[in-house]
Amino acid sequence: MTDTTASSIKKPKVVMVGEVPLGGDHPVTVQSMLIVPFSGRLEGLGERFQAFKALGCDILRVAVPDMKSVKDLPQLVRLAPFPVVADIHFDHRIALAALDTGIAKLRVNPGNLGPEWKTLEVLKKAGDKGIPVRVGINSGSLPQKVKDKQDQASAMILAAEEEIEIMEKGRFYNAVFSLKSSDVETTYRANELFACRYDYPLHLGVTEAGPLVEGIVKSTLALSKLLARGIGSTLRVSLSDSEENEIITGKSILRALGMSTGTDIVSCPRCGRSTFDTQAFLGAYGDRIRKSGKNITVAVMGCTVNGPGEAAAADLGITGEGNHRMIFRKGEILGRFSPEEAVRVFFEELESS
Amino acid sequence: MTDTTASSIKKPKVVMVGEVPLGGDHPVTVQSMLIVPFSGRLEGLGERFQAFKALGCDILRVAVPDMKSVKDLPQLVRLAPFPVVADIHFDHRIALAALDTGIAKLRVNPGNLGPEWKTLEVLKKAGDKGIPVRVGINSGSLPQKVKDKQDQASAMILAAEEEIEIMEKGRFYNAVFSLKSSDVETTYRANELFACRYDYPLHLGVTEAGPLVEGIVKSTLALSKLLARGIGSTLRVSLSDSEENEIITGKSILRALGMSTGTDIVSCPRCGRSTFDTQAFLGAYGDRIRKSGKNITVAVMGCTVNGPGEAAAADLGITGEGNHRMIFRKGEILGRFSPEEAVRVFFEELESS
Repeated sequence: MTDTTASSIKKPKVVMVGEVPLGGDHPVTVQSMLIVPFSGRLEGLGERFQAFKALGCDILRVAVPDMKSVKDLPQLVRLAPFPVVADIHFDHRIALAALDTGIAKLRVNPGNLGPEWKTLEVLKKAGDKGIPVRVGINSGSLPQKVKDKQDQASAMILAAEEEIEIMEKGRFYNAVFSLKSSDVETTYRANELFACRYDYPLHLGVTEAGPLVEGIVKSTLALSKLLARGIGSTLRVSLSDSEENEIITGKSILRALGMSTGTDIVSCPRCGRSTFDTQAFLGAYGDRIRKSGKNITVAVMGCTVNGPGEAAAADLGITGEGNHRMIFRKGEILGRFSPEEAVRVFFEELESS
Repeated sequence: MTDTTASSIKKPKVVMVGEVPLGGDHPVTVQSMLIVPFSGRLEGLGERFQAFKALGCDILRVAVPDMKSVKDLPQLVRLAPFPVVADIHFDHRIALAALDTGIAKLRVNPGNLGPEWKTLEVLKKAGDKGIPVRVGINSGSLPQKVKDKQDQASAMILAAEEEIEIMEKGRFYNAVFSLKSSDVETTYRANELFACRYDYPLHLGVTEAGPLVEGIVKSTLALSKLLARGIGSTLRVSLSDSEENEIITGKSILRALGMSTGTDIVSCPRCGRSTFDTQAFLGAYGDRIRKSGKNITVAVMGCTVNGPGEAAAADLGITGEGNHRMIFRKGEILGRFSPEEAVRVFFEELESS
């Protein structure tokens, strides 16, 4: 088991999360998790869900900490344009109740549901309903007996083995696993070891990755290395930040690796010379560009002198100086416009791309 | 030249940027670039520079677009607690004048300074003053004659060769090179090819990398791959965002690769269950933690139940619930505090770490 001479990666079997397949030859999907409690606060959530979807969210997880939340789950599921995963800890009765709400997956740690019969009861019901379970192994909360004996990645595999043993005792095989650490190398090694041994689809992530910038850096390092080796069927970038930024990061990693389509935004830093405030433009219109879903490259350039030339490879671009803006396609200037007119023309061109 | 069977990487020679060495066995340094024009706006810049420095900025570049800016350069250089690089295009007279202002490096594209004698005049003066020059090759602005003939990475090497020919004609060898593309793979390949052929130190970066999230993802991918191969003596992460975020990203990449020290922040995403708003805490105090310069791991955890345990490896941590906060060290709880008191205790503990 502790043999790290990584041999071949097993092709993951297909697990259906509602209509969304994980594993097999299916594209890697992007998840996020709702950061505020939803119970009693469903208003406006439908609109936010649509925005998540347009940015590239395939599956959404929500924490279900109590029975009050379970009551609101059916309505949340109806609002959601993607499958919903219920994240449940400690109380197996919440898990049992949640299985009747229309959720598409359950996320539990069998280890923390108490005595084994409780876990088996949950697995039995999930099995009867055809609802998959994601088992989360977190390097920070390993059982004492495995924690002390091994290097951390191997200890995580031992913990996974124990969970698999319980599950298979209940003849439950419809599972997805995650092995997360806040350390990039441990996350990589644990997932690599798992993928060489098991054909359960892997949900990738770095746990407690950090604030926006540090979290993106760590997640990009760990996830890109795993994805490039063919490991991982779905991912969530965990950030101490918004769901939107988690989704944009996940999609960007996949796109940069050529594993997903979507709009690629190239843009200048501001440089003390440029007169077009690329940062302000992207702050105002970045999400509208991302949500277009167009499989093209959009350039937001700082100056009219170099902009169209340097971004000649971009399908569509905008730059400006003083009170005029310039729109270009593949380096060819379409015209000069006022700032307001330019936004209109830019999005017309984007829509027709 | 177009042979891409990457052989061995040449060890870069040492080039001094003021007091800061690039190349040799020296640590990789982090740069940023001022995003607003400084001429006539020097007020408050000294304080901002101190903040950049505390976050890990080793060298700062500024655009010098006109003679008015050259006049303000000596004062800017005096305010700066790090070497200053002047970025100059098109007008060799600005470059000549800037060399008398106390700058530590010049960034030019010999190709855009006009006829060769102008470039040679600049190099002669830089050579006499012992000031190094960074030559920037950008995939978006290659000379026509190389652009059409080769794949892009090879075309960038051809462009670099031409620049080196001009420089060596002027017996100028005190140079740093950058080869930037907005494409991750092209950036990687161009730098790899260069590092196998030349011993000039390389300044790494992805050009027009994009908005904050996309820019961090692309930069992390390209730079980590190069740095892991031992390529690169200094780096700048170009973002359509703040200098601070460029610096934090650069430092995070180096730290994640074990190439730099500094404070590692691990933190929970919010999960709809936690009662401590990690995002708000990091927004308010993240930079103060980063600037501490302590070579430790700090954990900002969402809940008191799992927080101290999951972050048992962290040197110092904070979590909370309702109106109390909990501070812990290596998983051991130091006490419960009011929110205000907790901030005081947390930073006292950080300072004494």
